[in-house]
Amino acid sequence: MTGSLLEILNLLGKQSHAIDSGAAQQWAETFTPHGVFRSPTYAEPVRGREALTAFATAFAKNNPRTHHVVTNVCIDREISPDECRVKSNLLIVTTTQQHGSERVAINRITTVDDHFIRHEGVWRIAERIITRD
Amino acid sequence: MTGSLLEILNLLGKQSHAIDSGAAQQWAETFTPHGVFRSPTYAEPVRGREALTAFATAFAKNNPRTHHVVTNVCIDREISPDECRVKSNLLIVTTTQQHGSERVAINRITTVDDHFIRHEGVWRIAERIITRD
Amino acid sequence: MTGSLLEILNLLGKQSHAIDSGAAQQWAETFTPHGVFRSPTYAEPVRGREALTAFATAFAKNNPRTHHVVTNVCIDREISPDECRVKSNLLIVTTTQQHGSERVAINRITTVDDHFIRHEGVWRIAERIITRD
Repeated sequence: MTGSLLEILNLLGKQSHAIDSGAAQQWAETFTPHGVFRSPTYAEPVRGREALTAFATAFAKNNPRTHHVVTNVCIDREISPDECRVKSNLLIVTTTQQHGSERVAINRITTVDDHFIRHEGVWRIAERIITRD
Repeated sequence: MTGSLLEILNLLGKQSHAIDSGAAQQWAETFTPHGVFRSPTYAEPVRGREALTAFATAFAKNNPRTHHVVTNVCIDREISPDECRVKSNLLIVTTTQQHGSERVAINRITTVDDHFIRHEGVWRIAERIITRD
Repeated sequence: MTGSLLEILNLLGKQSHAIDSGAAQQWAETFTPHGVFRSPTYAEPVRGREALTAFATAFAKNNPRTHHVVTNVCIDREISPDECRVKSNLLIVTTTQQHGSERVAINRITTVDDHFIRHEGVWRIAERIITRD
């Protein structure tokens, strides 16, 4: 378990910095080539790296000064040395100007269920399911 | 240190998901059989798995849409390979409906001092002391 | 990577507890002896342990009931086994009294770029650059 969790923690940290800084392709590459992203915030699942890149590009454009804060990461179930399920909570934190001063708020908090597989030696997300809590 | 911290990070993540999803017994099992939970929010310490399970059941019932967000986890003191003190901060994050829209707020932030021991090969909390900051 | 990230996670956790509890010297010791702290919140960089200790002392005095919540920690670039760049996000969370009840708020969220080096066998921050997001 040990090494896998650490690699996954690192990947999830990188993933947040990627989407929040507009590095859309880097974000998409945290998924497997055919990775799927499902969220109740969006009408349809996003499938595959090309669509994931477009999704992240649009997200960054439409959500300035937004942070994906990943917490409570744990391996929920180890399926094999190359496959596991990881649970975490994601806080969407936004900074806005209000009456001349800045206001930082938690826009929403979600639970994230990730199906991780080791793809070409590297942990990648095969499927992410977001639940609004 | 290395392996222990990772197991403890995983356990603390699981613990938050357990109490927030109402898995009271799973939460209680992150403590040793005679584990103690002390918090200024509650009049009396909670002692032992049966009482801890009842506590978590009541918490989940009385606190819908609440997340325990664990952060700043570190091993404060290594006592032996099977015993250590771990410090963290815990944010209690709640989602409520307000004037028809959702509002996510940090209800409180606390410091958590955990006395961990390796019980039957697994890290468990022998005593947790919460301090309101 | 694995072991380094874990030691760094532990150090960053300890660092937050240190500054928030007024343990100024302990905070300064998470930097190398000539470590530098750069933040747009402050007019000048803070250089070296003596100045860092004074900085942390003043911070704790002027910011009661404040928490440094470190999240999204990842190794951004491995330079050598003894040198790496680490990215994280830092939330400054404050608790204040307002109309007789307590209010917990995120005061600001920043991106932290740390240049870590292994100094006398221990990871230390040679330079920290804070960006206000």
